[in-house]
Amino acid sequence: MTTLQLNLPKLVRQQNPVVLTIANTVTPAKVADGLSAIGTSPIMSIAPQEASEMVALANAITINLGTINKEQVNEITTVLKENQNQKPVVLDPVAIGASQYRLTVAKGLLQSYQFTVIRGNAGEIAALANVNWSSHGIDGGSGQANLHEIAKNVAQAYNCIVVLTGKTDIVTDGNNEFINHLSTNYFTTNIGSGDMLSSIIAAYLSVSDTPYLAACTATKFFTAAGVKAAREVTGFGQWQVKLMDELATLNSNEVLSVL
Amino acid sequence: MTTLQLNLPKLVRQQNPVVLTIANTVTPAKVADGLSAIGTSPIMSIAPQEASEMVALANAITINLGTINKEQVNEITTVLKENQNQKPVVLDPVAIGASQYRLTVAKGLLQSYQFTVIRGNAGEIAALANVNWSSHGIDGGSGQANLHEIAKNVAQAYNCIVVLTGKTDIVTDGNNEFINHLSTNYFTTNIGSGDMLSSIIAAYLSVSDTPYLAACTATKFFTAAGVKAAREVTGFGQWQVKLMDELATLNSNEVLSVL
Amino acid sequence: MTTLQLNLPKLVRQQNPVVLTIANTVTPAKVADGLSAIGTSPIMSIAPQEASEMVALANAITINLGTINKEQVNEITTVLKENQNQKPVVLDPVAIGASQYRLTVAKGLLQSYQFTVIRGNAGEIAALANVNWSSHGIDGGSGQANLHEIAKNVAQAYNCIVVLTGKTDIVTDGNNEFINHLSTNYFTTNIGSGDMLSSIIAAYLSVSDTPYLAACTATKFFTAAGVKAAREVTGFGQWQVKLMDELATLNSNEVLSVL
Repeated sequence: MTTLQLNLPKLVRQQNPVVLTIANTVTPAKVADGLSAIGTSPIMSIAPQEASEMVALANAITINLGTINKEQVNEITTVLKENQNQKPVVLDPVAIGASQYRLTVAKGLLQSYQFTVIRGNAGEIAALANVNWSSHGIDGGSGQANLHEIAKNVAQAYNCIVVLTGKTDIVTDGNNEFINHLSTNYFTTNIGSGDMLSSIIAAYLSVSDTPYLAACTATKFFTAAGVKAAREVTGFGQWQVKLMDELATLNSNEVLSVL
Repeated sequence: MTTLQLNLPKLVRQQNPVVLTIANTVTPAKVADGLSAIGTSPIMSIAPQEASEMVALANAITINLGTINKEQVNEITTVLKENQNQKPVVLDPVAIGASQYRLTVAKGLLQSYQFTVIRGNAGEIAALANVNWSSHGIDGGSGQANLHEIAKNVAQAYNCIVVLTGKTDIVTDGNNEFINHLSTNYFTTNIGSGDMLSSIIAAYLSVSDTPYLAACTATKFFTAAGVKAAREVTGFGQWQVKLMDELATLNSNEVLSVL
Repeated sequence: MTTLQLNLPKLVRQQNPVVLTIANTVTPAKVADGLSAIGTSPIMSIAPQEASEMVALANAITINLGTINKEQVNEITTVLKENQNQKPVVLDPVAIGASQYRLTVAKGLLQSYQFTVIRGNAGEIAALANVNWSSHGIDGGSGQANLHEIAKNVAQAYNCIVVLTGKTDIVTDGNNEFINHLSTNYFTTNIGSGDMLSSIIAAYLSVSDTPYLAACTATKFFTAAGVKAAREVTGFGQWQVKLMDELATLNSNEVLSVL
């Protein structure tokens, strides 16, 4: 039985950690607003010249592969070299199941640097496990493999925590597994839901000494916000707005109420 | 009399096509959310290294010139070369009436590659027709020329469909013309309305065998969503939210109700 | 006593100025929508090839340092060279208190080019004044120095207007000072509030002959919109939506009503 760290939302607001996101070019505003809503100070950067300073001021880092090119891979590796495993790092391997280029970059990063958490959908985590899976662009896709096994294997292979998100979220450190059933289709429709969660996990990692529990708690809180929003409004646009409302006010009691 | 293909919204949701947008840097989140709302799987990329894979997985492509530079022109030409006219392509020539650099790039692309649809405002289409027109940045501008003639001439010159949007939308394949009067000023205020429509047209092209009717239908549906939203809420911000609500639920009956 | 130019909102709508923003990669859509809501025609560009044309068509320019790298610094200097002090220019030195790289770029620009307005938070303006200040990423941070003195010194050093924003906004041309107490915490939570204000100040500069009063008026109007929105809705997401509603309709009477 996994015991969530229900004090983390409050700790994030109290400590106001700086979360550095090496973002994609599509959803940076959503990620920044989500991070700001939960009480962190988000920062983004694309210049290797300031990578050292950015890592120094960051309490946690997210690497998002959503729109990588040669320059951004250089930026990412500069940030990771500067970090030297000092600050927790989340990898979001967007659409690596749909692009050999992205998959090669992701595997190269995972072999060279230690990540605290990998957060991806079924297609992305399956690609890291070299499992046959039918990816569908940025979406999770479909396949017959056992996602619990896939997540566990990837966690063990890279000695990190895996957060495999979908209708059911699986969080595992290779030994323990946490299952989260909080879900709404709006998360799938909303482009950047995964990007937001990856950076929010980084925020939670920065205020906890137990990365596995922080990842579980972040996943539970973020999805609770989305489910609560879905109960209160109708319509995709309205839900996007309400999600921000919820992220900005969500506390432990509210999460417990939607469990 | 143009007969709209009223089954296309349903087909998009059923087939969930992958729409690749080579986006500008201003509105990619709006385009991605709009595409996702209508039931497609949007993807964006800026790396020539994955152009071949992106084209292979895409069911339709949109090329947006909103913030081009040398690197993005290289990305665009790589994508178009890989495509070899296999997947339908929409060109959105943002502000080419205001920048000789953009106009030169647009004309070069049109001379080298076959586009299925060009979607632009009066100033942009007039620039392609070499017609005197007073452009105003990204806006349509003003002039005395006959927009119906301009659209027809550009369609014939480049052997494609032209969707000229404004208070009245003109869709033409050089022979037939479809006029759409559904309009709201919110579309003009909202930055990225045109970008969204261009990518939504691409989505409709991917599920239809008749590009001209697909372009007409996409234009009618998108503007119907905006007009319906404008009837239900007051305020620019509220309208932006409601537009997403409408795009996510719009069906044929609702479109017919606002005609 | 500073007399605000209460006709500027109306003039912006009447003259529909083109505002060129050399934007960061995080919040360009918010800046563009905010500019469009108040009645300007926003345009953005990242290509030095069209810098000359962009400057020619622009009525005012904003330079935002939020995510600079080598290429964007080249773009910025090309735009400023082309401008030759013809159009008013606002500098938004995002997070220069947190990055020596950004600070060096900002100081280099200020030494080589004349800016009409510098708009930044306490940490950013303090960095320009070489005053000891504890910056916190993109946030204002904290310190003991007198912000009124800091703003005045920077205005005098660079012969420009300084708009130092925070819980209290200070606008000064080095001689006069305007204090604005309109404030809501939502501005801090919302990523891009400062970016939006910087570009809105540029818009107001373009329709006024007195830059200092234009900067004061823009600051008052923008914060009035935010305060009015905060009185009408509850929730961060709802406030973001309402802010756009307010920017699109705000007029002098409404500003006076919230003073």
